[in-house]
Amino acid sequence: MTSAGRHLPPELHDALAARFGSRFSTAAAVREHHGKDESSFAPVPPDAVVFAESTEEVAEVVRLCAARKVPVIAYGTGTSLEGHLHALWGGVCIDLSGMNRVVAVRPEDLDATVQAGVTRKALNAQLHGTGLFFPIDPGADASLGGMAATRASGTNAVRYGTMRENVLALTAVMADGSILKAGSRARKSSAGYDLARLLIGSEGTLGIITELTVRLYPIPEAISSAVCAFPAIDDAVATVIETIQLGVPVARIELLDALAVAAINRHSKTTLREAPTLFFEFHGSPAGVEEQARSVQAIAAEHGGMDFEWATRPEDRSRLWQARHDAYYACLGLRPGARSLTTDVCVPISRLADCIRETVADLGASGLTAPLVGHVGDGNFHLLLLADPADAGENERAKAFSNRLVERALAMEGTCTGEHGVGVGKRKYLALEHGAAGIAAMRAIKQALDPDNILNPGKILPE
Amino acid sequence: MTSAGRHLPPELHDALAARFGSRFSTAAAVREHHGKDESSFAPVPPDAVVFAESTEEVAEVVRLCAARKVPVIAYGTGTSLEGHLHALWGGVCIDLSGMNRVVAVRPEDLDATVQAGVTRKALNAQLHGTGLFFPIDPGADASLGGMAATRASGTNAVRYGTMRENVLALTAVMADGSILKAGSRARKSSAGYDLARLLIGSEGTLGIITELTVRLYPIPEAISSAVCAFPAIDDAVATVIETIQLGVPVARIELLDALAVAAINRHSKTTLREAPTLFFEFHGSPAGVEEQARSVQAIAAEHGGMDFEWATRPEDRSRLWQARHDAYYACLGLRPGARSLTTDVCVPISRLADCIRETVADLGASGLTAPLVGHVGDGNFHLLLLADPADAGENERAKAFSNRLVERALAMEGTCTGEHGVGVGKRKYLALEHGAAGIAAMRAIKQALDPDNILNPGKILPE
Repeated sequence: MTSAGRHLPPELHDALAARFGSRFSTAAAVREHHGKDESSFAPVPPDAVVFAESTEEVAEVVRLCAARKVPVIAYGTGTSLEGHLHALWGGVCIDLSGMNRVVAVRPEDLDATVQAGVTRKALNAQLHGTGLFFPIDPGADASLGGMAATRASGTNAVRYGTMRENVLALTAVMADGSILKAGSRARKSSAGYDLARLLIGSEGTLGIITELTVRLYPIPEAISSAVCAFPAIDDAVATVIETIQLGVPVARIELLDALAVAAINRHSKTTLREAPTLFFEFHGSPAGVEEQARSVQAIAAEHGGMDFEWATRPEDRSRLWQARHDAYYACLGLRPGARSLTTDVCVPISRLADCIRETVADLGASGLTAPLVGHVGDGNFHLLLLADPADAGENERAKAFSNRLVERALAMEGTCTGEHGVGVGKRKYLALEHGAAGIAAMRAIKQALDPDNILNPGKILPE
Repeated sequence: MTSAGRHLPPELHDALAARFGSRFSTAAAVREHHGKDESSFAPVPPDAVVFAESTEEVAEVVRLCAARKVPVIAYGTGTSLEGHLHALWGGVCIDLSGMNRVVAVRPEDLDATVQAGVTRKALNAQLHGTGLFFPIDPGADASLGGMAATRASGTNAVRYGTMRENVLALTAVMADGSILKAGSRARKSSAGYDLARLLIGSEGTLGIITELTVRLYPIPEAISSAVCAFPAIDDAVATVIETIQLGVPVARIELLDALAVAAINRHSKTTLREAPTLFFEFHGSPAGVEEQARSVQAIAAEHGGMDFEWATRPEDRSRLWQARHDAYYACLGLRPGARSLTTDVCVPISRLADCIRETVADLGASGLTAPLVGHVGDGNFHLLLLADPADAGENERAKAFSNRLVERALAMEGTCTGEHGVGVGKRKYLALEHGAAGIAAMRAIKQALDPDNILNPGKILPE
């Protein structure tokens, strides 16, 4: 599967070098940097990297590669988690990080158009003073193009949805180098096949997203955060489920197990009680926020919630959420030198307690170290299975555990990946999740839109 | 384009008759009933109708037809508006109205699974007592399968989204008779191509949706409605725009022009002031609803809003919204014998005032009669161009007006259809809206999933 890159055809090399000059590179360090993400998969570098600055340049590269059937892989910030960027059959990586221009902000329409390389933090920085913000927040400061390509979400999705709901329109370069514009700035449309939604989550295998128009939201008049510890993880999960079922419009509701809290305390110098913990955030009018918080506090109290602690000052809230965001790196710090196999199942909320309970029991039996963090308002949680790369046995145990977890989630009508995407890592589950007819339809679409299989080959679709 | 049906191959006729008995019909009255919708297009009946009762039966019919390359058209309630059901090349209509079983309601997950023939009112009736409701409301009591197939929305979409956002999973029969399950009951997923979103809005041209799982919402603790008249349509539109831009989470915000209000008064025996009017609905906690309503009333007052009138009692609200829902039939009643060519553009909200102003001016110049109603919170509005079917000149003027309106909306970065779909009526605009690359991608997908073009042929894609 990871049979490394054939070499670049010399005339393609020369054509790209001539066209892009210093923005074309075959240097080993550059190639290595572009052949990996933040997963534990061994890097597979591309044969060359082009630093593109416009949709037209991306189209030029794709046309040059298409003529020679050479693979093309788009790169944003390299923060994906399933081997999305690995050049399994070599080819050219197009780095879009230079496409970092916010093309337009339209406060009156609550939307913004950005080039694909703009990161979520960069967009929010540019929105300063407009009274608006872009809510989707996967933790990493990912590029918006990459977030669209993996259908990313994160902590705010329970209130604001995922990239699926928040991209109005996009521009993509297709496998033949043509430039497609999908969707429109209208809030809704019934005008034909939803090509925008098809490209969102296609992980660069159907087209390369180069520009997108996203929804913005008014910064809530009032925001408050809260942290609450629980005697057991079941109590925390029960609190989440009741909150969602009551229809309380929480903006974030995040679960960390005791081990994850310990990791955060160590990494972020916080002093949280090392017990299963929920992080909440409420958005709304001052009265609305208070109402939501009161409801949630009452639910938490019924389930043994302790140390319910408020943060309304922006600096306290920032510190709290920064700690939550750093959880991935904090957890990696629990075992220096270990790599994380990160799981990403998502189940209907009614099955969340069962799924977590069975998973925690399985974890105990497995002898693995794995903190748990999750966007549990959506039924989505992650285990960071920390394994020593040199310990083949431990890695096998981690993979077997992950397999069992995916099978458990699918049996509960869930999905193998709530937000990280398929990449290389989840390909083997796709047939189990979507069945033969689903895989046949996906293959037919891939074949129709990329007949030579040059766009990020070896990702999503099973062998 | 409307070259009528070839006859059914005799052995297909016999096979369907043998298999479905009295649930198979070639009676003229039955065929005629199934060859039309509520648009002004002349009916084109199918050659036969099968009344299916299960996904497996639909698959059987499709397999029988596929083997002979005979067209298949799915039928729900016949309330679509763009000639979606017209059997342009004959074939078999599959009536799904007998597939009217609510398969499961899961209050704990806020979702329900229904067969495609269940209507929105039937679902809400079954939800009685659960504290939940299904919000999408296109006016007509359409089937949920049909609503998904046209990516329907309606009055509540400004708050709750469209069918795109509210279908979690679906079952569809594909062109080869295989049964595809797309999506899952998880709230979010990044597991491969979004086949559910591709089928939603595909109008039966890529697959026949036979079952779907939709999101439900807690019935708001408090609901209130309001009506407010304005001196001019511009004032009403300005009120809408400010409301949306402020982020007030209105559940509905509907515009009617003076003519539409007059039609409603006559049809529903109401006594509304015959002026441009907004209908509002607010959902939330009692305090939240009051807060929203106060904000909107203040905005309306700044724009000359008159007769701001509240309805908090359920029976008053029902009467109000029933009147709004009956607007289509009320408007048809303005000119007995006339048919309506119904427009459906949707534009970014910042362009809504310009779009409506230019359209009203154009209408004045055209000499046509056309009340205006709209889901203006989304930037979507309809004109019901009432024309005498016998008056060719008037019909041509209506078509030319509609063309100008679509071109105006597209120039404003909008869409030719916000919620009715493409069907036959909007095909000619698709290339203008999506460009050559968009049409090429749609064609490639259609060809890949329905190579013999048997699924609702002649719809969506331009000739």
